[in-house]
Amino acid sequence: VRHFIEELEELKTKLLEMSSLVEAAIQRSISAVILKDRGAAEEVFKNEARINTIELEIDELAINLLALHQPMAADLRFIVAVLKINTNLERMGDLSVNIAESATSLIEEPVITPMIDIPHIAGLVQSMVRKSLDAFVTRDVDLARSVLASDDAVDSLRTVCYQELVSFMEKHPQNIQPSCNLLTVTRNLERIADHSTNIAEDVLFLVKGIDVRHHTEARQ
Amino acid sequence: VRHFIEELEELKTKLLEMSSLVEAAIQRSISAVILKDRGAAEEVFKNEARINTIELEIDELAINLLALHQPMAADLRFIVAVLKINTNLERMGDLSVNIAESATSLIEEPVITPMIDIPHIAGLVQSMVRKSLDAFVTRDVDLARSVLASDDAVDSLRTVCYQELVSFMEKHPQNIQPSCNLLTVTRNLERIADHSTNIAEDVLFLVKGIDVRHHTEARQ
Repeated sequence: VRHFIEELEELKTKLLEMSSLVEAAIQRSISAVILKDRGAAEEVFKNEARINTIELEIDELAINLLALHQPMAADLRFIVAVLKINTNLERMGDLSVNIAESATSLIEEPVITPMIDIPHIAGLVQSMVRKSLDAFVTRDVDLARSVLASDDAVDSLRTVCYQELVSFMEKHPQNIQPSCNLLTVTRNLERIADHSTNIAEDVLFLVKGIDVRHHTEARQ
Repeated sequence: VRHFIEELEELKTKLLEMSSLVEAAIQRSISAVILKDRGAAEEVFKNEARINTIELEIDELAINLLALHQPMAADLRFIVAVLKINTNLERMGDLSVNIAESATSLIEEPVITPMIDIPHIAGLVQSMVRKSLDAFVTRDVDLARSVLASDDAVDSLRTVCYQELVSFMEKHPQNIQPSCNLLTVTRNLERIADHSTNIAEDVLFLVKGIDVRHHTEARQ
């Protein structure tokens, strides 16, 4: 039986590998939409299997650690946080695949539809993802809290995008199909932001042992 | 310190309470859309806080069980399955709130928009939710597998709904806003089906110790 510390290190390394893959998938899916980059979309589809495999490996490692070493206190919190962050990362990977699929439809239907605030919302979401993962690595509570604060900004921007796209469709009914694809993109970006928020909450749980979910007063 | 078996029983009871609340929320959110029942939507909003509270209580109970009793093998798998199912149930609760919000917009904008296949997809999704939870309670592997098989049917139905709504909007641009609300409803129903699939996978992990996620051959 290998040493506990060594297996814990392996768990952390694998989660960082998972994070890099998911961040790259998000970046590529956004490029696929904004730059109409078909190659970027295809990279996202290609890497999905690897993300799914690492998710299973991380869960297995974590459950084995729980079973074989019965860790206490801080180590137990770390392993539970890794299990939760892992689930969130895998879903973010799925959402990138959804965005890359919408991008593919948009590339195949070359109708001019305004990008409205999508580059703006995408930039904000990517920054939330980056910060939530940095907060995990450096155990930075302030950084984690800043992610929680950004979530409302993304929700408002999404509402603005939604209204702009509905108005655009009303004026240009021939562009309903691509506009619906863009609606789907904004919804998937918002869901990626939600998962970053979940990760930031997991970081607070890990570092402070507090659960901030559903406690709005603690999120100010 | 209370007896381990007693705390495990409490964990199971709380998860069943959570399941009932979430099933009721899904049922009411669908009635709110299909029957334009504003009272049903309001019940969903009212019960959200209770669902969020129980989610935290279940996580805390499960983590305490892991920390204080260091359970092995089957008990460890049960507790990990409860943690995962709990997360899925809470998200299903959130999705019901989204559906109830769309219902509220639809009630406030009394434009006639066809319900197309929404009652059909809603029925299928509710049956998946019911079966995945029954499979957990009775540890029924065949029932869990039947949930995995239904997921593709929901995805196909959702694609049909999507295309029908886009065609309807193209013909009736004055109804774009309510049609977009219905699009959102179908997407949220599909996501509830995805979470039922996750629960069915957790049941297979619990009973058989096997992880069927991302192994399509095992899902036939």
